[in-house]
Amino acid sequence: MRIGMVGCQGHWNYALAEWQRQGEALLASGYEGESMERARLVLEEKGIRCAMAEDWRALAESCGAVIVNTRFDRNADVTAWFLERGVPVYSEKPVATTLEDLDRVRRAAFAGKAPLAAMFGLRFTPWYRTVKAALPGIGGIRMIDAQKSYRLGKRPEYFGRRETFGGIIPWVAIHGLDWIHDAAGVPFRRVAAACDRQYNRGNGDMEMTALCLLEMEDGILASVRADYLRPEAAPSHGDDRLRVAGTEGVIESRDGRVFLTDGKGQRELPLKEEEDHFAAFLRGGQGVTTEESLYMTYVALKAREAADSGAWMDLGEEFFGFA
Amino acid sequence: MRIGMVGCQGHWNYALAEWQRQGEALLASGYEGESMERARLVLEEKGIRCAMAEDWRALAESCGAVIVNTRFDRNADVTAWFLERGVPVYSEKPVATTLEDLDRVRRAAFAGKAPLAAMFGLRFTPWYRTVKAALPGIGGIRMIDAQKSYRLGKRPEYFGRRETFGGIIPWVAIHGLDWIHDAAGVPFRRVAAACDRQYNRGNGDMEMTALCLLEMEDGILASVRADYLRPEAAPSHGDDRLRVAGTEGVIESRDGRVFLTDGKGQRELPLKEEEDHFAAFLRGGQGVTTEESLYMTYVALKAREAADSGAWMDLGEEFFGFA
Repeated sequence: MRIGMVGCQGHWNYALAEWQRQGEALLASGYEGESMERARLVLEEKGIRCAMAEDWRALAESCGAVIVNTRFDRNADVTAWFLERGVPVYSEKPVATTLEDLDRVRRAAFAGKAPLAAMFGLRFTPWYRTVKAALPGIGGIRMIDAQKSYRLGKRPEYFGRRETFGGIIPWVAIHGLDWIHDAAGVPFRRVAAACDRQYNRGNGDMEMTALCLLEMEDGILASVRADYLRPEAAPSHGDDRLRVAGTEGVIESRDGRVFLTDGKGQRELPLKEEEDHFAAFLRGGQGVTTEESLYMTYVALKAREAADSGAWMDLGEEFFGFA
Repeated sequence: MRIGMVGCQGHWNYALAEWQRQGEALLASGYEGESMERARLVLEEKGIRCAMAEDWRALAESCGAVIVNTRFDRNADVTAWFLERGVPVYSEKPVATTLEDLDRVRRAAFAGKAPLAAMFGLRFTPWYRTVKAALPGIGGIRMIDAQKSYRLGKRPEYFGRRETFGGIIPWVAIHGLDWIHDAAGVPFRRVAAACDRQYNRGNGDMEMTALCLLEMEDGILASVRADYLRPEAAPSHGDDRLRVAGTEGVIESRDGRVFLTDGKGQRELPLKEEEDHFAAFLRGGQGVTTEESLYMTYVALKAREAADSGAWMDLGEEFFGFA
């Protein structure tokens, strides 16, 4: 299968292993001036045959699936366009940076011509898969806490504008929201949130910190914190954490390791293997579903609205008809 | 000095070392049927001479300071009564379980006849003192996260009624609020919170989980989670955590250990010694101040109100005149 890609700003590396097996690529910029050169070099180095298209719309003709990860604010339009034409889309998360754009993607996806999967690759890591598999051992889940802490590093210029970036909640905290939703297996009900953009080292209006407090169905409570405060000298780029507390035990992950405390005491769990969710997506298997891709974007955008407005936001039945 | 104690439901063990040095105790029940027997046995075992009073008011005559830790809902009345008579009070936290009761304590304390210190002993532990001492090395504080997780165990019957217990936020989460306030050194501005009381194993209306999201002065964000979900087989009773993220580094504590990540990488810090804050209080030294004792109780009670009402609560200038 020939796989297309629009832009190369995001996590297209998740697709590499399967792409090598498929062997062929067609690439196009997603906005004026976006260079695809770096992507082309990496793909050719992996032995993937690369062609370039002038207009990204050309990819619909010959590609069995399209990877969309151009500038954040452009992804929704491109994704919706392909879905409308029956081309499966593997999109950067969030799949849209505004509720209006998300509605367009939702309509295109719910027309049912092709599936959509967002790049929630962190749900297929060894540590998360280990946490997930151990959940039945901790009874009823009551509270979940997720952390995303990154090095700031050097960010592209468009990270400094809300219109082109989207914000730290849709970009970073969304992974925490996704773990929580996947682990709890029930919908969110309400969210309160707060962000701060001070001391962002010249990155425009980009937030440096975010906190989300969520109420879920059945009284499950959850929190997500995200920040760009991880020191450059830290031993890794990201400091992902997850803690799931249930009626019979607590499971926790940090530094890619997983610890379980239950009626037998505390111990570390052996890790499961990474799962190739892009391959699963191409084969119509599990991976990330269309509904999850849309729903997690919706929750992240409402959490951002909760932070912007300083008010609790309902996350109810509204979702499937928010337009 | 003769030290009095009303009730023995709380953390009077913090006073033991200094009490031994002072050598004398006068004990009284704080509510009908409260037995002081267990406390008397422990004190005598430590070589402290014990006398019993029929009425707790009798302690004002001969005691240089009074420890107040009877049933939660009774502490405020007793504390205010002693403060009004110029007797220094070392009180269980929260110093009151309602804003009305807190106002009575505040008026008595602000009359200035005697100091008040709440039992924020967890601020004088080796790990917290180590975190505090390392704070100047992480630049400007931007985000703080605190965790309190306890074994449920067997709780007294009065934990099962909000009127006599007060709730998990004023009783447990308050320590997280205190660490955060002490570390950040600036006031709180707003709080959102949520609690849940399901699966509480027959403990009436007692909450099992709580989450607080706080905005502080200068855009510092903070969160506190508290739960009674720690398994009985866990290696310790409590799982206290604190993470302080600043512009130049991150300090973290878990399992009583402290880790610093900064421009030089990641490393564990040697622990400072425990501090006897009750001794400091008796000698008019540092320890916990009257204002901190009142303010942290105020913040905890407003956080509880935020959870009960499902709305953000302002925590502003209001404090010094909330009546």
